Formats: sequence, C-alpha cells, structure tokens
Amino acid sequence: MDMLSILETKKRGKALTPEQIGYFVRGAADGTVPDYQLSALLMAIRLNGMTPEETAQLTMAMARSGDMLEPEVGGVPVDKHSTGGVGDTTTLILAPLVAACGGKVLKMSGRGLGHTGGTVDKLESIPGMRTSLPEDEFVSIVRRIGCAVVGQSAQLAPADKRLYALRDVTATVDSVPLIVSSILSKKFAGGSKAIVLDVKTGSGALMPTLEASVELAKAMVDIGRLAGRSVTAVVSGMEEPLGSHVGNALEVKEAVDVLAGRTGGPLKKVSLFLGARMLMATGLADTEEEALARLENAVASGAGLNKLKEMIAAQGGDPRICDDISLLPHIDATVPVPAREEGYLSHVNGTALGLAAQRMGAGRVKKEDVIDPAVGFVMEKRIGDFVKKGDVIATLHPRTEASAREAAESILSALSFSPVPVPRARLLYALITPQGVQPLDE
Amino acid sequence: MDMLSILETKKRGKALTPEQIGYFVRGAADGTVPDYQLSALLMAIRLNGMTPEETAQLTMAMARSGDMLEPEVGGVPVDKHSTGGVGDTTTLILAPLVAACGGKVLKMSGRGLGHTGGTVDKLESIPGMRTSLPEDEFVSIVRRIGCAVVGQSAQLAPADKRLYALRDVTATVDSVPLIVSSILSKKFAGGSKAIVLDVKTGSGALMPTLEASVELAKAMVDIGRLAGRSVTAVVSGMEEPLGSHVGNALEVKEAVDVLAGRTGGPLKKVSLFLGARMLMATGLADTEEEALARLENAVASGAGLNKLKEMIAAQGGDPRICDDISLLPHIDATVPVPAREEGYLSHVNGTALGLAAQRMGAGRVKKEDVIDPAVGFVMEKRIGDFVKKGDVIATLHPRTEASAREAAESILSALSFSPVPVPRARLLYALITPQGVQPLDE
Repeated sequence: MDMLSILETKKRGKALTPEQIGYFVRGAADGTVPDYQLSALLMAIRLNGMTPEETAQLTMAMARSGDMLEPEVGGVPVDKHSTGGVGDTTTLILAPLVAACGGKVLKMSGRGLGHTGGTVDKLESIPGMRTSLPEDEFVSIVRRIGCAVVGQSAQLAPADKRLYALRDVTATVDSVPLIVSSILSKKFAGGSKAIVLDVKTGSGALMPTLEASVELAKAMVDIGRLAGRSVTAVVSGMEEPLGSHVGNALEVKEAVDVLAGRTGGPLKKVSLFLGARMLMATGLADTEEEALARLENAVASGAGLNKLKEMIAAQGGDPRICDDISLLPHIDATVPVPAREEGYLSHVNGTALGLAAQRMGAGRVKKEDVIDPAVGFVMEKRIGDFVKKGDVIATLHPRTEASAREAAESILSALSFSPVPVPRARLLYALITPQGVQPLDE
Repeated sequence: MDMLSILETKKRGKALTPEQIGYFVRGAADGTVPDYQLSALLMAIRLNGMTPEETAQLTMAMARSGDMLEPEVGGVPVDKHSTGGVGDTTTLILAPLVAACGGKVLKMSGRGLGHTGGTVDKLESIPGMRTSLPEDEFVSIVRRIGCAVVGQSAQLAPADKRLYALRDVTATVDSVPLIVSSILSKKFAGGSKAIVLDVKTGSGALMPTLEASVELAKAMVDIGRLAGRSVTAVVSGMEEPLGSHVGNALEVKEAVDVLAGRTGGPLKKVSLFLGARMLMATGLADTEEEALARLENAVASGAGLNKLKEMIAAQGGDPRICDDISLLPHIDATVPVPAREEGYLSHVNGTALGLAAQRMGAGRVKKEDVIDPAVGFVMEKRIGDFVKKGDVIATLHPRTEASAREAAESILSALSFSPVPVPRARLLYALITPQGVQPLDE
C-alpha cells in the first residue's frame, strides 16, 4: 500500500478500496502522507468523483481518525448543520426551541472565514460566554438543559482538519464526496445519531445550482443511511441574507427577537422548519404540523427564550442579554444608507454583503484576525420590496466613518433593482430523506 | 493573479492564459508557489489536458525560467532525446557519427533512475571522463569537434526540476503536455535549433500503447512548430533491449563495437536512422538515403570512432578505451545463464531486465546510490530466436556470486517462450514531422 498506487487508481477514475481510503486518511491525520500527495489526490477526487460506497468509507475513516464520542445525554443526540450563509442565525433560534420541546441538541459549530459568519463567533459576542468546553461538561449541559453550542474539538476527525485546509487552497472545495465526508465525519465523531442539514443553494452557496444542491443533499442522506445514522436534508435558498441582521452581536439580537416573538419572517420560518425536522428525526413529533405547532408554542410561551438563557448561563455567559439587549457589545451611532435608485429590489449579492460585513470588522480575512463583535448592518429591504430614491435600504453599525463609507458603497453595489415587480426570494426548495426528494411549496 | 484562480480554471477544463501559465511556472522556479498547489494543478492538467497553444506556452515559460543559451557552434545546434529505454546506447553512436558528417551535436543527457540507464552514467565509466563542463568549454568542444555530451545543467529550466520531482510522486508522469514541456523546455533552453526525438512505445515505455506514443510524438512536433524549432520524432519499439549489452561500461563497449564496424543489428539500425534525421533536420543531407549512406561511410572509414576518441579526450577521458576495451572497468569472471525451457523467445519484460541490472549495481535505487560501472549482462538471444534447454541465454558480469544468482533468476523470469515461431520485435513504427505521420516499414 502506498500513495502512488492510490493516486494512480483515482487518476484512472477507478474506485478506491476501503484499505486505500483508510491508508490516506490515517496518513492525513498522523502527517505521514505529505501535503503534495494529498493535494493531488483531492484534485483527482474532485475531477473523477467517488461512488457512494467510497464516500461512506471516506466519511467513516475520517470520523475514526480521532475520538469517537458516545455521549449519554438522556435522549437521541441531534445536531444541525448549515452549508454556510450570510445573516443565518438559525442555530441560536432552533437549538433552544428544540430543547424546550424535549430535544437533546449537541451542537458543534465552526468559526466564520471568508464571507460567511460562524455561530461560535456570534456566541462569543455575549459577555463571558465560553465556547470551548471539556467534553464531559458539554455533555452534562446537554443532559441537564437540552442544548449546548460549542466550537469544533480538535480531537474530532483530525484528518478533516488537514484535508479541509488543503481543499481551501487547491480549489477542491466544491466536490460532493469531499463536502459530505467533511461535514458528516465530524457529526458522526461527535456522537450525533440524528442530523438535520441545511444545504444552501444560489449564488455564493457551495453548490451554485439547484440541481447540484439537491445532488449534494441526496449524497448526504445516502451516506447517513450507509452509516446507520438518521440524516435529513433541507435545500434552502440564499438569494439574500436569511435574517435582516448581519454581524455577530446583531445576529444574536435578532435571534433573541425571534425567540421573544418580536419578529418573524424568513429567519423564523426556516429555523422552525429545520427544528421541526429535528423533532421528527428524534421521535419527539410524528408529523410536521405537530412539530411546528410545538415549536410555535415554545416561542409563544417564552420557553425557548428561557432555554437560551439557561444555555448562556451554563456556558458562562450573561443571560441578562436576553432581556436587555444593550448589554451586548453595540455601536451607538448608526448610519443610514439611502437608496440611490428607484425600483423593485431584484437581486442581492449575498457574498458581497458578507464581505462588506467582514471588512467592517465582523469577520476574519486571515485566521488570526480579531473580530469586532459590535459592527455590522441591518438590511431594511428584501427582494421584492419597492424602494424609492432616498429610502433607507440598510442601517450601518460601523466602528469608523471610513468603514461606514466603504460598507455603504459595497452594499449599494451588491443590490440590483427592476422597474417591474419581482417575486419574493424562495426560501425552501426541497426536503430530502431516505424516502426520496420532496419539493417544498411555499 | 493567484494560484486559486489558476486551479479553478484548469479544474473546470478551461484553457489557461499565457499570464496564468507564466505565473505558476515562475512560482515553481522561485519557490513562491507551494508544492501542494503545484501538485493539485499537475493532477488537474493530467486529467483535463492542455491545448497545443497552452502546451507551447508552458514549454516556453519553463525554458525561460532559467538561462537561455544561444551557443555559437559554427552550425545548427542539434540534439537528440529518447523517452527512456533499457540497453539503449544510441547517443554514444550517433553523436560522433553525425559530428563526422559535419553536424554540431550539443547533447545534454540525464542520469539513470529506476530501470532505465542514463547516458551520463555510461560516459562516466570511461576513466577520467568529465560530464559536468562550464558552458563555454562545452560550446567550444562542439564548435571544434562537432559533439559533446554532458549532464543537464541546473541553470536550465529550473521550473522543470521542481515540476518533474512532483510529477514523480503524484502519479502525473503520464501526461502529454507535461512530458512535452518537460523535455522540450530543456532542449530549447539549451539552445538546440533542431531536435530529434526517439519516442519509445511498448511495455515499460512512458506511453504504453502505440496510439498514445504517436499522440505524444505529434504533440512534440506540434510544439516545436509553434515555438519555431525543428522537431522530428521517431516512434520506436522497446519490446526488448535495443542493444544486447545492459550495464554502463558494457554499453560503452557495445557503442565502440558498432562504431568500429564489428557489430550491427537493431542498435546500429536505430542509431543510424535517428542520426539520419539529425543530418536532414540541420540541412546536412537532403534525403534519407543520402544521410544513411554518409553515416554508413563514417562507420566504414573509422571517422565516427575517431570523433568519439576526440570527444572523450576533449572531455578529459582516456580515448584509448576505443582501441583497447579492457581499459574500461570490467568483471573478469563472467557467469552464463542457461535456458530452463525450450522454445521461441516470444516476450521480454524490459522493465524487469532493467531492474535486474539496477540490482546488480548498474543503476540507482535512490538518487544518492553509487553506480558500479563494470557490472551488467549481455543478452545472447533476441525475440524470435529458438532456444534449446541449456543454451546460454545471457552472460552475467556480476560483482558477487549472490548478485549473479539473483540476476539469473530475474532474467529468466523476465522471458517467455512460445512453442511456435514468433516474428522479430518491430524496431521502427512511425516518423512524425510537421508534414504528418509516416508509417515506417521494416
């Protein structure tokens, strides 16, 4: 067994054996296979693909490259994962709601890099909040409260850490078997028995077309089945930010607003839909209607917001932010961005908006960058809205005047207008389960 | 311009721009592009290919990554290159013969690695011979004598050095654009205006099938045309070693035997055919018949052997080896290998024979290994010969008894016999010039 024969096999478009997959994954984890051979293999996999069986073997080999947790949380451990978006705070809404309905949400999240935000960064805008917990404390919080959200542990799927970093610099991010194995290996290693995936589609998503997004979602569900875990995938749109708030503390505020019943809209709708699938996947609800009704009830009763407070307190944060949002880092002097043209908002470049927030200080350009939790902006219009010249289209929360000017320019350039009415952006496209693909009507 | 966009372009199967090619070649030469990105790009090129224009631009960019020689040799500088073989000593025969006919052979050769021998290693078996000469001395010998054979200079095409090493460890050796650019960039940088290529076909060759070998040869000729150099390619067979001698000093002896008119056969035939193309490519002969007649005459008159003596003397070696072969390193106690079965020799595993010589000490397993110039073996039978049990099929020149036993075993395992007559192995398959492909009848 050696890397050259493995490279030769995949170069010729043949399927790798479980032994070959085990060999290179172990070599990725322990450093015995050099970067240049892994990179060439990643490109060969990107171009020649993998069978579902290879992908399942790759996923399990990556999961087993580090610790495999078997957490005792007093229920079915459930996790949710999104393939990345802008202004997407579903985790902070659905985790407490599902916990309030009896779920055990064991959520491991990433940090943001590039134009998409990271849940861990958002949580860290809450004063005192700890996102790096010892495994037993993490599990014990989930057992006691029903949810906890922490950063990815370095002990889980270490092979993925190396392969992920290489994919990023070798243009091999957009490979279905590599995406599937990267996401699911960490979930499997973390001990989740049920996983609900939010696969984004549209410009700026991992997969640019609806067909490719559905293909990715199907592959994930397939691999879950082959690995004996319950995987459900929802394909959702990212034509514009899901919520109106973009920025770390701003997104926490919006999540609190949704849990407090003060705001609804697309962010709430998608959060509840994903939460409903989590309740169903863990046997806590039989039908979508029942699941949605229970989640709505957890909003109305305040049980969801209470769960968030409990979780924040358990993780060392200040739960009073849920009642007094001014305790979050914030910018006092906001700056309105007036529209320069008139028309129906027809297109939003989500990637450009994410990059605008990043340049304001809400995200990292390099891994070492320090995030400014207070900065960001609120979009005041959505696709389909009619906008008059001078209407406030966004409200900036900038640290400096220069960053405000730059962000205003970027936001305005990211928007297109139509003289004729345009429909709202579609939110939910399809539900993928082991039973098949079900189109979702809005 | 950055590597990610270059990787993205080639990953999507699109053509790279001259600027993109220049960027990564400079990065390969100066070390600013890391191995892992070059490796991923090499795999993308291997799988998605390159257009002739891209290949020409890659070749020229690699040539320009180091010194570009413009040697004043008093004629058209001509070089010859073989894509690798076992028992292939054509260079030591055709360089002096072409020089004897007025040619200016500026030959840069490689060292052997793996199962194929290297001309530089063969030359270094001649006592005193220097193969690493300052550029001006090398050029002045060619100007004065008509030929010189030296090792590849590190100052020529440094990008190739890095890419070649990476191809070797990423299973991307068998890519037409990468082979073409690697070979021709060094020839162009070395200042050759006419290049004759010997593209081997058959088991153990770079290209396993005749179609692939012709495709490679056509690509080389094409790139020569696009780059304004005269490139001619001959596709020749490597069903068995070209000469009967395998080993460094043994192959020098066989070359001397051919130049002295003491032996003919396939090695002489192919050497003269390649030499004839060199004379025609540099305008020293108009027709193949004329060129071959002049070369035959240089053998008969002893002019070719005299040129070899002059070249050896100019490069510091002992020219007396041409008259007294016992001055070369040699093994006194030879060991015959008797046939264990009867039949017509039908198949020879050339790679296995090369590896047998390598293990006797004639080649390197690792780059640092020191070669034993005296060891090797002489094949006493060729494909098509009838062999009786006990007939001597090869004569070993071993350093130790153990290596003799091992070599005998390897050689016998490398041969197959047929109960019915089999034809001789074909030597010359096709001639490729800018005018097209011309099949060669034997």
